[in-house]
Amino acid sequence: MPAKRPTIADIARAAGVSTGAVSYALNNQRGVSENTRRRIHEIAATLGWVPNTAARVLSGGPAGAIGLVVDRPARVLGIEPYFMQLISGIQAALAGGPTSLLLQVTDNAPAQLAIYRRWWAERRVDGILLVDLLVDDPRVELVTDLGLPAVILGEPQADLGLSSVWTDDEKAMAFVVDYLTTLGHREIVRVAGPEEFVHTQRRTAAFLAATAGLPGARVLTAADYSDDAASRITRRLLTGQRAPTALVFDNDVMAVAAVGVATELGLDVPGRVSVVAWDDSALCRLVRPALTAVRRPTAERGAAAVTLLLHPGDGPSQVKTADPELRVRSSTGPA
Amino acid sequence: MPAKRPTIADIARAAGVSTGAVSYALNNQRGVSENTRRRIHEIAATLGWVPNTAARVLSGGPAGAIGLVVDRPARVLGIEPYFMQLISGIQAALAGGPTSLLLQVTDNAPAQLAIYRRWWAERRVDGILLVDLLVDDPRVELVTDLGLPAVILGEPQADLGLSSVWTDDEKAMAFVVDYLTTLGHREIVRVAGPEEFVHTQRRTAAFLAATAGLPGARVLTAADYSDDAASRITRRLLTGQRAPTALVFDNDVMAVAAVGVATELGLDVPGRVSVVAWDDSALCRLVRPALTAVRRPTAERGAAAVTLLLHPGDGPSQVKTADPELRVRSSTGPA
Repeated sequence: MPAKRPTIADIARAAGVSTGAVSYALNNQRGVSENTRRRIHEIAATLGWVPNTAARVLSGGPAGAIGLVVDRPARVLGIEPYFMQLISGIQAALAGGPTSLLLQVTDNAPAQLAIYRRWWAERRVDGILLVDLLVDDPRVELVTDLGLPAVILGEPQADLGLSSVWTDDEKAMAFVVDYLTTLGHREIVRVAGPEEFVHTQRRTAAFLAATAGLPGARVLTAADYSDDAASRITRRLLTGQRAPTALVFDNDVMAVAAVGVATELGLDVPGRVSVVAWDDSALCRLVRPALTAVRRPTAERGAAAVTLLLHPGDGPSQVKTADPELRVRSSTGPA
Repeated sequence: MPAKRPTIADIARAAGVSTGAVSYALNNQRGVSENTRRRIHEIAATLGWVPNTAARVLSGGPAGAIGLVVDRPARVLGIEPYFMQLISGIQAALAGGPTSLLLQVTDNAPAQLAIYRRWWAERRVDGILLVDLLVDDPRVELVTDLGLPAVILGEPQADLGLSSVWTDDEKAMAFVVDYLTTLGHREIVRVAGPEEFVHTQRRTAAFLAATAGLPGARVLTAADYSDDAASRITRRLLTGQRAPTALVFDNDVMAVAAVGVATELGLDVPGRVSVVAWDDSALCRLVRPALTAVRRPTAERGAAAVTLLLHPGDGPSQVKTADPELRVRSSTGPA
């Protein structure tokens, strides 16, 4: 760093006094004469010294930041609208206040745990938001052990002893399947995100429950939510035996990629295959055909989690957001 | 916050000694007996006390974070792929290291200045990245006055005394205009972002220089880069007198929206109107027709700026990234 802020030691050196005397003077405590106090204040002002939060934190004050670690390749952040919607909601809740968002991307789970440990040990954060909860997630044990305040953005897990802000995806999935079967679809495929996420498993369970009795209904997994994975799966499905008439994707990017593949194969959307997206970012209404999508209150969820983290009640609470809505656009139609 | 980390005062209380004694003991300085030192260390371990960065920062050490303030509505972050590409590049450069990104969104310029002041005063950051540089940008004077290390993500401004990482958009614009005129286009409209940004003005100047002699070439401004603004402008242009045959947009989202409007008007892209996007996020290759776009090394630029901020050389330097490339896809064709 080219510049360095003046420290108490710098002021002490310039004033020819001890650092203790500077501390007394700047904190307006007894222990120095009035003349010395005045001189120290003048020198501090000349050097550009300012009181700082580090000192406040040392005495137990707030760190002024909340932490978010995203355990996905940095590249994914640039493609996946979900995270930007989430961050935009977090920022909306922090706007105008004294708290910032401390953000770090990792590409492996142990690194994520190490970051939480460090942030808390070094008092960089007052609490964290946990996303992409896993089954038996080691982060839950860690934050509990550390006493690090945390709010889960995801399914309610009352037994974990942590607060969460959740959206009823099961209800949304049941609604989507009902909508598609009413249109006459029987061969419905869900293209899911990573299986290790609790939210993936919940949606899959809801899908299987809603499609019970439809032999053509099944679930395939796109390991990384990527457009590449979705394109491969869609191509295989649409050119294979018993091609599905409806595809339900776990995010926007995969659904948009699938429409692209269908167009390339000369298959009309929705004439030959209906496509449903999840999340409903701007992408869904910008493309043609505009995508039918499950709209989730992602930004609102981020904002609610911040509020819960900064102003916790007594004991953990499970806050449910407004229900997701199915926005019917042009990518779905009769089977 | 439900939990509170133990402080030196807590240890002092538990040990029945002064905070000074605890400080001596934990810093392994003289001033306490060996027995007391050992007892204090034991009590500190029992209480879960950890040395923290706040203390290190007090003595002039690094804050372990770099700051980024985005002066756009929080909602825009969720729509504009540019920022997520940038942040993904910043995170890639920070990955595995001890530094995090401190991110805050504001909706007005004075608030942005206040945040820089506070971050630096409170030693929350070691430096900042400046985006969306304005003509006579007050942030430049502020960071210079404060001695706050800063790297500009934008056009080189050697006279400002700050380092910058820039991409040659002028060359890209000249290339785009050359490409379109070679295809026979004469009525070319640039739909620009906010006029107050230096990068907007540079691109506009390059566009006007390259289209000199084409009476149908002109520049319109979409005040906020939004799909709504672009849709309004595109509708007006395509249904008006002397409709342009080619549109060049300042980002992806506007270009995607324009293709949507053309489709709604029954105007073939590129048969009736060619569309060029800027930035080239995933959006451009996912939509159909896939968008011809100027691909800029946005993530690489973010990473380079981080490196320059954390490892500055002697004096300010102007680092140029690889040149943007025109990715020709399906949204452009002969006039």
